[in-house]
Parts: sequence; structure tokens; C-alpha cells
Amino acid sequence: MKRPSGRAADQLRSIRITRNYTKHAEGSVLVEFGDTKVICTVSVESGVPRFLKGQGQGWLTAEYGMLPRATGERNQREASRGKQGGRTLEIQRLIGRSLRAALDMSKLGENTLYVDCDVIQADGGTRTASITGAMVALIDALKVLKKRGSLKGEPLKQMIAAVSVGIYQGEPVLDLDYLEDSAAETDLNVVMTNAGGFIEVQGTAEGAPFQPDEFNAMLALAQKGMNEIFELQKAALVD
Amino acid sequence: MKRPSGRAADQLRSIRITRNYTKHAEGSVLVEFGDTKVICTVSVESGVPRFLKGQGQGWLTAEYGMLPRATGERNQREASRGKQGGRTLEIQRLIGRSLRAALDMSKLGENTLYVDCDVIQADGGTRTASITGAMVALIDALKVLKKRGSLKGEPLKQMIAAVSVGIYQGEPVLDLDYLEDSAAETDLNVVMTNAGGFIEVQGTAEGAPFQPDEFNAMLALAQKGMNEIFELQKAALVD
Amino acid sequence: MKRPSGRAADQLRSIRITRNYTKHAEGSVLVEFGDTKVICTVSVESGVPRFLKGQGQGWLTAEYGMLPRATGERNQREASRGKQGGRTLEIQRLIGRSLRAALDMSKLGENTLYVDCDVIQADGGTRTASITGAMVALIDALKVLKKRGSLKGEPLKQMIAAVSVGIYQGEPVLDLDYLEDSAAETDLNVVMTNAGGFIEVQGTAEGAPFQPDEFNAMLALAQKGMNEIFELQKAALVD
Amino acid sequence: MKRPSGRAADQLRSIRITRNYTKHAEGSVLVEFGDTKVICTVSVESGVPRFLKGQGQGWLTAEYGMLPRATGERNQREASRGKQGGRTLEIQRLIGRSLRAALDMSKLGENTLYVDCDVIQADGGTRTASITGAMVALIDALKVLKKRGSLKGEPLKQMIAAVSVGIYQGEPVLDLDYLEDSAAETDLNVVMTNAGGFIEVQGTAEGAPFQPDEFNAMLALAQKGMNEIFELQKAALVD
Amino acid sequence: MKRPSGRAADQLRSIRITRNYTKHAEGSVLVEFGDTKVICTVSVESGVPRFLKGQGQGWLTAEYGMLPRATGERNQREASRGKQGGRTLEIQRLIGRSLRAALDMSKLGENTLYVDCDVIQADGGTRTASITGAMVALIDALKVLKKRGSLKGEPLKQMIAAVSVGIYQGEPVLDLDYLEDSAAETDLNVVMTNAGGFIEVQGTAEGAPFQPDEFNAMLALAQKGMNEIFELQKAALVD
Amino acid sequence: MKRPSGRAADQLRSIRITRNYTKHAEGSVLVEFGDTKVICTVSVESGVPRFLKGQGQGWLTAEYGMLPRATGERNQREASRGKQGGRTLEIQRLIGRSLRAALDMSKLGENTLYVDCDVIQADGGTRTASITGAMVALIDALKVLKKRGSLKGEPLKQMIAAVSVGIYQGEPVLDLDYLEDSAAETDLNVVMTNAGGFIEVQGTAEGAPFQPDEFNAMLALAQKGMNEIFELQKAALVD
Repeated sequence: MKRPSGRAADQLRSIRITRNYTKHAEGSVLVEFGDTKVICTVSVESGVPRFLKGQGQGWLTAEYGMLPRATGERNQREASRGKQGGRTLEIQRLIGRSLRAALDMSKLGENTLYVDCDVIQADGGTRTASITGAMVALIDALKVLKKRGSLKGEPLKQMIAAVSVGIYQGEPVLDLDYLEDSAAETDLNVVMTNAGGFIEVQGTAEGAPFQPDEFNAMLALAQKGMNEIFELQKAALVD
Repeated sequence: MKRPSGRAADQLRSIRITRNYTKHAEGSVLVEFGDTKVICTVSVESGVPRFLKGQGQGWLTAEYGMLPRATGERNQREASRGKQGGRTLEIQRLIGRSLRAALDMSKLGENTLYVDCDVIQADGGTRTASITGAMVALIDALKVLKKRGSLKGEPLKQMIAAVSVGIYQGEPVLDLDYLEDSAAETDLNVVMTNAGGFIEVQGTAEGAPFQPDEFNAMLALAQKGMNEIFELQKAALVD
Repeated sequence: MKRPSGRAADQLRSIRITRNYTKHAEGSVLVEFGDTKVICTVSVESGVPRFLKGQGQGWLTAEYGMLPRATGERNQREASRGKQGGRTLEIQRLIGRSLRAALDMSKLGENTLYVDCDVIQADGGTRTASITGAMVALIDALKVLKKRGSLKGEPLKQMIAAVSVGIYQGEPVLDLDYLEDSAAETDLNVVMTNAGGFIEVQGTAEGAPFQPDEFNAMLALAQKGMNEIFELQKAALVD
Repeated sequence: MKRPSGRAADQLRSIRITRNYTKHAEGSVLVEFGDTKVICTVSVESGVPRFLKGQGQGWLTAEYGMLPRATGERNQREASRGKQGGRTLEIQRLIGRSLRAALDMSKLGENTLYVDCDVIQADGGTRTASITGAMVALIDALKVLKKRGSLKGEPLKQMIAAVSVGIYQGEPVLDLDYLEDSAAETDLNVVMTNAGGFIEVQGTAEGAPFQPDEFNAMLALAQKGMNEIFELQKAALVD
Repeated sequence: MKRPSGRAADQLRSIRITRNYTKHAEGSVLVEFGDTKVICTVSVESGVPRFLKGQGQGWLTAEYGMLPRATGERNQREASRGKQGGRTLEIQRLIGRSLRAALDMSKLGENTLYVDCDVIQADGGTRTASITGAMVALIDALKVLKKRGSLKGEPLKQMIAAVSVGIYQGEPVLDLDYLEDSAAETDLNVVMTNAGGFIEVQGTAEGAPFQPDEFNAMLALAQKGMNEIFELQKAALVD
Repeated sequence: MKRPSGRAADQLRSIRITRNYTKHAEGSVLVEFGDTKVICTVSVESGVPRFLKGQGQGWLTAEYGMLPRATGERNQREASRGKQGGRTLEIQRLIGRSLRAALDMSKLGENTLYVDCDVIQADGGTRTASITGAMVALIDALKVLKKRGSLKGEPLKQMIAAVSVGIYQGEPVLDLDYLEDSAAETDLNVVMTNAGGFIEVQGTAEGAPFQPDEFNAMLALAQKGMNEIFELQKAALVD
């Protein structure tokens, strides 16, 4: 098996995390997994959604979008179609659940964090890049809240990151790009904590069903990749 | 650990599959996993969506809904809100992908199968019950197509079913009901083929992250449950 | 004239009213008029819509839906179309007005009753079956409110039920099924009180206009049918 | 009983029908029932909706609207709310059914007639005024089609008009204005042909149920009013 | 150059402003610029939008619509399409900004003025007719507020009116009708105060770009027309 | 008068035009006017909208969006609100009209060009930056069409660019940033051709009306700025 990119089976793409990418948001990151580029911002607003009012805790919610020509073919703009598609909703729910797992909401104060992940160029793995990049922007937003004295303790419980793995031409590979993704037999997205626990595991057989041993091989590959990604997050956060 | 229902950790709820539940649809099943009750219909229409026109193959698509008071609290009707929620879209995409894995579309002729899963009473596990019941309705709809001479061979590749597993009070349990589901630390939905392959695996940590060994224990429990469910499907299909 | 079902011109279909059909709602009925089957639930929420705030009275509102394949041909799901159709809105407005006529809102306390009528199988007369069944579910919901001590007196003023009549092959007939309904020259829906007063009368000439004497013959037939239906409601309400 | 307007119980408001009210439409009428003023246009387009394609017949469809401040209190504009309300849909369905009863669609050729009834000032009875006025605009549009040679015979079967009746302070009255309408115990809209047949009868008890004899008294009043209205239509159509 | 209407290049169409055109609104005007006819109402409601709450000032907002057959070809009704088009939104934003320039909001009290401009017949220049007519309806609505004692001073700062100019067959012309508008090389809408200042200037080259001297010629023409229009507004306001 | 940025009254911000900013689109530009940053892509699709079918000409259409946190306060995502706001529609209509003025559609072949302008950071002047940047991306897209042999001649008639001017603290200034824009008395957007003709002129008095001489001063300033901007476009297009 030869990967289209020439990478080794267990090799990540070149990953770059650029902080303070735009100037208005409390946290703002450009994350690049190879040619996949996502702007992740975290915005702070005081107050919480109605279902949490008066409980003394905070909230985090996420939205995801793609510029119409982030992809090989232009997609209709969701704002002009008048609704977000199922894929978009599914991804933004995943991002939201994943990042909430990083936080102790009771320490956040009555603040809401809005995470926006907007793909400006897509080449596979946009949801895992979004989670990885937004985690860094979230740290920056927490620093702003801390400076303002709006927290009720340390809300950060753990770092979160994500990566995709899959079966490509019969073999498990790490961090699929678009060419691999569209030809893969199985696609597995893994969200983990820096302590090695799983937050989300979503595997889909695109063609043949996958077997338990393939599953385990993919998880092992994901774990390896995650270790490297957590190091990259850490490096990006050094001021 | 004691399950609220008194079931053993590896015990399914009482599962019932009633065919020909309503009279108009080509396939119509009421599936019950304990108090969870879903009407699954499969409707046949000739023709295919535009993106498949002229390729000589068929298609299957799924929709999911809940009656407003299928749940403990009434939910706003999606038709009057003017849109389907993210959870609904996520579930119906899962049902569609899972059932398409049962079929060889090139044998289906230019027909579209519409799967509708409508929950009339919810008590946990509505998506796994939907997949399990809709598979049986799908078999009945294929029989109708065969009788009409609309097929181009045998489209059925394999049987598909689904079950949920989770970590409840620190222990892996099979087929969570609502009380367990809302208190579980981890929730894992597994879709499999009757040959033991995985079609979808979706695991979410609700509280603490889950560990690799917990993951394997849950998968083993799911495999055990699936074997029983495939037997129940087979029994239901005896005329 | 021979009716497709072989019924006499003044003969109702077999009507069944099953209480406590689902477990969550305060009132839950499956009503069957022959092959027409509707799940009617009544849900209680404290509080009233804004336009009634602070007036010390209650409210009742109704919604109506059909499963996509409740009918001979599949209809597009209203939730995925993004809006309820004109027929749906017309029927749910009728159900709401009819059931509000059963109640003295000033005795209800500041509670809102949500009536949901969902057709799981359609064979003509879904709106009249819905009103008839929902009336029984409403009684059960009032019992719950009474037990909770949430009422300010007895809100029930009278029983309400409904039936359709029509001109089929030149003759007035009672309780049309789908075959008759789609071929009828005139279709008349009648909502009455158990004291014999009219709440709603909606007659439509589908082909030739109807004449005053035909109108009177249809009303007489409706009155006869209503008497039987009120007996069936009463019988269903015996515990 | 004294009517707020001082009219006799069986007295219509002053009714005026002005043809060619606007210049673009094939038929264009301003109809006034007292202070109720409705612009009714009929627009001709060649072609028919998809469900009628290739059947060699025509179609008529109707839409209804109110200017936001046609009423005592301003109503939100339906175009900016993003949907038509239930009342609007109910009324435009009634207008469409009523006017289709005037035509033999097989003689219309493959043409579609769009009826638009827009209330510029409301004072009760907007739906009956709409039907009455649109019937006259329809005649003018048919003349245009005839001149163009687009008809396949004479599509006009009969004239249609409409009026409301009700029980006001215990007595039946003809052609209710807003003050009466909002205080009436019963409201009955009647659509008839000039030969005396009924096309639609829609009666609603607003307070107490109405009794069969009240019903008959109201119908008699409607019939009297309709005779006068058909004379007014005829007079308006004299060139 | 000969204008289709035979008018001189600097000649307005016949303009008529009819006050109290409908009876419910606080201000109600029918404005006619030749065959262009617009009903302009101004409705008063106490209270202001959320973003102005508690600031002791008022607000004015505008909406614009066209009856479906106000034009040569029928347009789909925006209420049934489910959204207002870009042209509609652009025009109503222009009307709102223009009329707000007439008022000192701090003198208005916490009241909101809703301006509705509904075109019943279109023949070019509907937005400029709307602004011109609505200004007169606004004066009438202010009188009502004054009588009620709801004002905190005199909110009227200046009169506002609007007119279109353009380049038609190479020459600047005033107040374009539809035939000219659809053939014009340049279309310029000008909103001014009665003291000669500009509120809005919106010029669009439909074909060739326009040159600075053409621009100045058009502005001069607009200024001439505005003077006449302000006289017509003044005359209309004499009781 | 001192500008917040310290610029001279007739001084543009630093403008940068980066071609090939993303990899999928036929034309892709990042345009920066100071801190305002917009991604402009031009996508080519064969075929034209229905209203142009069979006329042998092409079309260009534009859409505009802002990332939710492109601004100081987060704005709700239009895709999740379910509609584009009036400001968005107004801007994208302006961009489309402006760029169509650059082209001879009869030379474009039956192709459609989709222009997408997405603001990733806003600091005033996003619409003028969008037009200026999209013009460059359009040139690149035309080159692709030329290479493919899809053109029927040279469609480019002229270059188009845009800039804003305004009255700030009583003086005309060029190219307003957000601080100036939000405090300006008048705001004027000017779209021109490289030959010095006007395509669009949109001026709005935010506070006091503007006078003819102020208008002329602003236009002169715009013309000066445009000359510099056309040079920057030209420089960016050197390969």
C-alpha cells in the first residue's frame, strides 16, 4: 500500500496551530492539518442559556461552517439555503460535546463560550482539526476570563484533541486526507483526553464491515497520533 | 450494581417485532424494546434521486421522528417549529447509512426505498430499535419488489441490527433503558451485520472518559446482544 | 347504492377507543374508526400563552400530524419540508376550537393543555376520529389535574364528538371511509355536544352543489351517528 | 336587538364592485362590503401545475393576504414572519375551492388562473367579499382568454358568491360587520351558486352551541342575501 | 429624444397624495406618481425594540411589499415563498433610514412607528413614491400622538421626499416610469430634505458607466423635481 | 481633525491583495484593507440560470458572508438563524451588479461565475474591499476559462474597484475604518471603472444631511483613491 501523499501509515500530516489569528475574538486560532485549514474562534458572553439560568454554572456551545468553495466543488451557502445541513449539525454537536468534556462548568461562572469553527479550505479531517484547534482557542479565552476575574476556580479539567484513522486499501492509516477519505473502507474519528481516555469514538464502514481486530489496530494508531498532537497543542500554547 | 429494571448486566429488554403493523406500506413493523415503541415503514417508489439518475441502481433513504409526547416531557413538534433538530438529523443519517449497508444497490433497480421510523413511545434506545425494526420492514418491502419483478437480482447482502451498551455505575450493561441512559457515564451504539462485522460504532463519554478496556468490554457485551437480536429478527420473518 | 364496505347508509364503522395507549402523557388514547387509527395525547403544562397571562384562566391548543406512510401513497414528512401544510393547519385549528368548546377555561387554572393527534393509519375521517378520541384523552388529563389540585372548579362543560357524513352515489351516508370520501359528491364534517348542539358544521361540495334537503338529510344522519358515538365515549370512560 | 350599524337583521351592507381597478391583471376588481375592501385580481398564465400536466385541462388557485394595517391593530406582515398563518391558508383554500366550482376545467385549456385577494381594509366578512369580488374578476379574465382563442369551449358553469350570517344577541343577522362578528355567538359562512345550491357551508359556535332551528334560520337569511348579491354581480358585469 | 409618455425631460408625472385612505391606521395615504400607486400607512405602538429599551426615545421602522399582480407579470407572493426578496429588504431599509432622518427620536417618547408601504400598482419609481407618501402619513400619525399627549416635544425636524432621475437615450430625465426605467442607462434615486440637503443618493449604471458631469446634471434635475414635490406634500397637508 | 489611525484625510489604508489564497477555486484572493480581511473566491460552473437558458450568454452572481466573530461583538451565524439579513442581501446584490459591469456576458459562453466574499475580520469597508478583491479573483477565473477554451471572445470590458469615503468630524476622508465609519456623519460607497466612470454611488447621511459641495468633495477624494487602488490591482495581477 502507498498513501497518495507518500506518508507512512502512522504519519500525521504537517500540523500548524497559529494563535491570535483574528483580532476580535477572545480566542482565535488557525489550525492546519496539511491542506485542511480551519479558523477556530472562541467568544465569551456573560449569561447562560435559559435552561441553565440561576444554577451558577457556565456553558459552551459550538457551530461549524464551511466557506462555499472550501471544497473541490462549490457547495451552496447554508445561509442562503436557509438551513444548516445534517452533516453540519452532526459535526457541530460533536465539537460542542468534545470541548465541554474539557471543562468543569461549575467553575466557569455564568458565562457562555461560543466556539465557531469555519473551514476555509477542506482536505479531509475538518472535524478533527476543528476540535484540536478550538481547544487551543478555548485556553486563550479562559485566560481572558481569568484576567477579568469572571471565573469561580479553574474550569480546565483536561486537554482534548481529535484525529481520524481509517482502513485504506486494506491497511490502517492515520490522519486521512481527502483522497484517502473518499476511498477508505472505514473511517473512524477519535476524540481523546491528554490522559488517554476516550471522549468520542465514531466509526463508519463505508464499504465492507470492519472487524474487531481492525478496530483495535485503528484505535492504537489513533492513540499514537494523539500523543503527537497533544505535544503540538502544548508547544503552541507556550507564549 | 443493580439495574433499575432488575435485569442482569448482559440481559436485553423484552423485544417484540410485529410485522404488517399498518396496512399501506410495503413493509411495516412495530418494534418494541421494552417500553420503547417505534413504527418502522418502508415505502417503495420507482425512480431515484437526481444524483443517481441513469446509473441503473437504486437508493435507500431514512427519516426519523418522535411524536411530541413520546417522551416524559412534551417536545415541540418539529413540523410546527419548521425544522428538524440536530439530534433527529443525526439519527436519521445513521439509520440510512446502516440500512444501505444491507443492500447491493446495483440489484435494486431504479427504485427508492423510504424508511420512516416514528417513535410513539420512548424509553431509551430509539435509534437502535429503529434500525433493528426497519431491517425487518425492509425485507418485506423487498419481497413486494420481487413479486412485482422490479429487482435486478438479489439486493440483500446481509442482515443488520443495532443495540446500545454503556457504563452504568461503573459496570458495562447491555441495552440501556431511559433511566440508565440518562445516568450512564458512557453510551455506545453499535450497528453490526449478522456475520459479526461492524457497520457503525458511536461511543460518547457523558461524564468521565472511557478507557480502552471498558471499550472492549462494551463491545463484547454488544456482540452477545446482537446474536440474540438476529435470532429475534429471523423468528419474526418466519411466515 | 351499495357502500364499498357493505355497511348500511346509517351505519358507523367499528369504533374502538383505547385509553392509556402510551405511558407518558396525562391523557393518551388510540382511537380507531375502522382502519383509521389516531393516537391522541393530552399533555399538561403549567402556565399559559402570553396573551392570557395574569387572567387566571387556562388554555387548550391542538396539533395534528400524519405519519408519512399513514396513507396509500407516502407523503413528504412535514418536519423535513420545513412547514405544516394548509390541510394540517386547518384540521388542527378545528380540533382546537372543538375541544375548547368542552371547557370552561376560567376553571382550568393557569394550565395549558396540548392536544396532539397523530394519524398512524388513514382511511378517511381522520379529523372526526381525532376530535372524538382526544375528547376522551382530555377527560383523563383533567383527572390528573384534579388529583394534583390544580383546578379552580369543574372545567368540563359538555362532551364533544365528531363524525362525517356525505352524499355518495346520490345518497346520504354516515361515517365515510376513504373509498367513499374520494368519490363523494359532498363531504360534511359535524362536531356536536352531547346535548345535541352544533359546534362546527363544515360542508363542501366536491362535484355538484348540494341542495337544502340533502343538507338536512345529512344533518339528521350525523345526529343519529353522534348519539352512538357519545355512548362509545361513555363506555370507554368507565374504569 | 339593535345592530350596531342600525341595519335590519336581513339587510346587507352597501356592496360595490369596481372592475378594472388596477391595470395589469387580466381581471381586477375592488369589492367593498361596507368598510371591508378587497382587491381581487385574476392572472392568467399558460401551463398547469405538474400534477395536471398532459391532461388537457386547466387549473385555478387562490391566495389571500391582508395589508398589515388593514385591521384595528397592526398585524405582523406574513412575508417578514416567513410564513402564512393558519387563518390565511384556511381562507385561501376556501376561495380556491369555491371558484373552481364555477368552472369546467376541461374547457379551460392548459391555463392556470391565479386569484389574489388582498384586503386593504377589514371590517368583517373579508372571505365572503373576496369570493364575491373574485368571481367578477374571473369573468373578465375568461373574456381575455376567449379573445386570445385559448379556451376549448365555455368553461363557465355557474356564478358563485358568498355571504356570512350569524347569531347576534340571540337573533340571526345577515352580513356581519366587525363589531357584530366579534360579539356573535355563531358565525356561518355560506358559498352558493346562482342556481341556489350550496358549495360551502362553514358554521362555528363561538360561545354556546347552535341548534338545528337556528341553523335553518341562518341558512334562509343567507339565501335571501345571496339573491341580492347575484344581482349586484350581474349589474357590475354589464359593460 | 422623446419620452414614451410625451413628458418634457424635467417634467414630473401627475402626483396625487390622498390622506385618510384607509380608516384604521394613525396615518394612511394613497400616493400616486402617474400609474404607480402605493398605500402608505403609519401605525403607532407604545414601546420600543429591545435595543432601545429604557433610553427614553422612540423608533421608526418600515416594511415594503407589492401585491403579486401589481406588475405586468405576476410575482410570487413573498408570504407564500416564505421570505422577502433582496430587492424588498433593500427598499424597506431605504424607506426606514429616510424617514428616520425626518425625526428627532428623543422627542418621540417610547413609541414605535411602523411604516407600511404596499404597492397596489407599479409603473416605476415605487420606492421614491413610497418615501414621499409615507412622509405625509407620518405627519398625520404624529398629530395623533400629539393629541394623546405621548410626545416629549416636537419630533419633526424636516420634511423628506424622494424622486428618481436617470439617463434615458443619452439624456437626463426626471421621474422615470417603467418604460423608461427598464431602458435607462443609469438610474439614480435621490432622497432629500425640504432644506435642500441629501439624505440618500443611490445611483446605478445599468449599461455604460456614468460620468461626473452626467451625475451633476441628474442631481440638478432631482433638485428641481424635489421642490415641486415638497409643494405637493405641503398642499396635501392643508386640512 | 485627526483621524483615529493618524492617516491623512486622503490616505488609503495599507491594501494587500494575495492571489491563490485557497487552492480549490478557479480564482481565490485574500484582500486586506488595513484590518479588514476578506476571502474572495470565484467558482466556475458550466450552465446558466433558467432565465438565461439558450441565449448563448453567461452569468455572474455573488454572495457575501461574515464569520460570526469577524466583528467586535459576535453576530449570530446566518446559517443557523435560517436566513440572510437585509444588510447581507444588500451587499451581495451590490457586489454582483458591480462585477457584472466588468464583463460582456455574450463572450462568456454558457458559464456561471459564483463570487463568494467571506469576511474573516471586519474593520470597516468590507463591501468595497470585497469588490476590489473579487475583481482580481475574477481575472484569474477568466484565465482558467480561457485555457479550457470555454470563452467566446474576451469577456473583460474593464476593471472595477470600490472605495468608501465619508464626512468625519466635518471633513471628507478616504477609506473609513470602523472607528470612523461608526462616527461618520455621511458614508459614501463608490464603485468605479478604471476609465473613471461610475458604476455605483451609494451615499447615506447618518446624521445631518450632506450638501452638494460636500458630495463633490467626497467624489473627488474617491476618484483619487480609486486611481491608487487600480494600480494595486494591476500590480497584484503581474505573475
